[in-house]
Amino acid sequence: MAQSNARSAQASKILETSPLDPAEARWIRLGKITYTDPLGVKRVWETAERQTRPKNSTIDGVGIIAILDTAQGPEILLQKQFRPPINKVSIEVPAGLIDEGETPEQCAVRELKEETGYVGAVEKTSTVMFHDPGLTNANSSLVHIRIDMSLPENQSPVPELEENEFIECFTVPLATLYEETKRLEQEGFGIDARVGTLAEAIELGKKYSF
Amino acid sequence: MAQSNARSAQASKILETSPLDPAEARWIRLGKITYTDPLGVKRVWETAERQTRPKNSTIDGVGIIAILDTAQGPEILLQKQFRPPINKVSIEVPAGLIDEGETPEQCAVRELKEETGYVGAVEKTSTVMFHDPGLTNANSSLVHIRIDMSLPENQSPVPELEENEFIECFTVPLATLYEETKRLEQEGFGIDARVGTLAEAIELGKKYSF
Repeated sequence: MAQSNARSAQASKILETSPLDPAEARWIRLGKITYTDPLGVKRVWETAERQTRPKNSTIDGVGIIAILDTAQGPEILLQKQFRPPINKVSIEVPAGLIDEGETPEQCAVRELKEETGYVGAVEKTSTVMFHDPGLTNANSSLVHIRIDMSLPENQSPVPELEENEFIECFTVPLATLYEETKRLEQEGFGIDARVGTLAEAIELGKKYSF
Repeated sequence: MAQSNARSAQASKILETSPLDPAEARWIRLGKITYTDPLGVKRVWETAERQTRPKNSTIDGVGIIAILDTAQGPEILLQKQFRPPINKVSIEVPAGLIDEGETPEQCAVRELKEETGYVGAVEKTSTVMFHDPGLTNANSSLVHIRIDMSLPENQSPVPELEENEFIECFTVPLATLYEETKRLEQEGFGIDARVGTLAEAIELGKKYSF
């Protein structure tokens, strides 16, 4: 299965990158943390944070693990999306930021519907995962969603993208995710750490036959 | 196996967090990216970047997958380290930033020796993985390192930590990494995305028996 968005993710182009004045920043802020180390020595650490995390939430967003059971075996639902910070089209799991008052599970079901058109049911939620804890508090949980392919609404799923979203959905057999990410990287795509780490761990699982 | 650092990672304490003046920032910078979307519409995106990436390098650092083969089965080498941005002790794979002129593989062997005391040999390197491509260009590769436990230098490995590093090493059976990360989260540790995603994918591998 592969669904393609007519508005391709691949035609974006960076014109200019310039320093960002914190007074102008709407999405990210820099912070200076003063702390004591285990010996009682006072130290300073720099951090970057999303400004979008809802009050009362301890997490920024979710990633979605959606496995489609096909006649050929399980396939994982992935996306291509241009990401300005890396100046590449990124290969990611469907994902999104949590809205005020939303649980991770509600966010995952909503984002899956918006970004891929699929209607799914939550199976389980991972630990909260910190994306780069030496740099930022940015984090997310992976929410596993079951997509019942026999449902009428999942026959021809239509994404409901916002006017500034350009996302292409596709699927990859889990068993060959590793080879596929290596191939996509060679073609110039950026591999998101969650996708790349999934691929690495599936190979470890094969090696050790758990 | 568990080796403990006398200087515990768990006694750090944040005293204050304040806005960081970009003129003062030494490790991170904010950027404003102007780009055109696939429809040709001009848009702006904010980004945070590490200032530490060497010129001529396209990646910031490495994570290290080191599996110790024990009589009880394969165990993954992990670390506990206080991370100011998340105000938690984080559960991570050994990792580090690339020095000028260093390959990811050289960096991985060096950092493993420094942080854990183990001497290892590189087996393979993953794709470059982007940690949070909507927020930052921060990235790394996972380098798989084989540790020969029969070598004399690996009998009683001694880390060579810098005076501002407080790292505890421990190992977890790969087969129960999922349960262990859930337990560590309950105890208040922060789970790094690479560790958490490895755990999730090993469970997927078990489910689908690749």
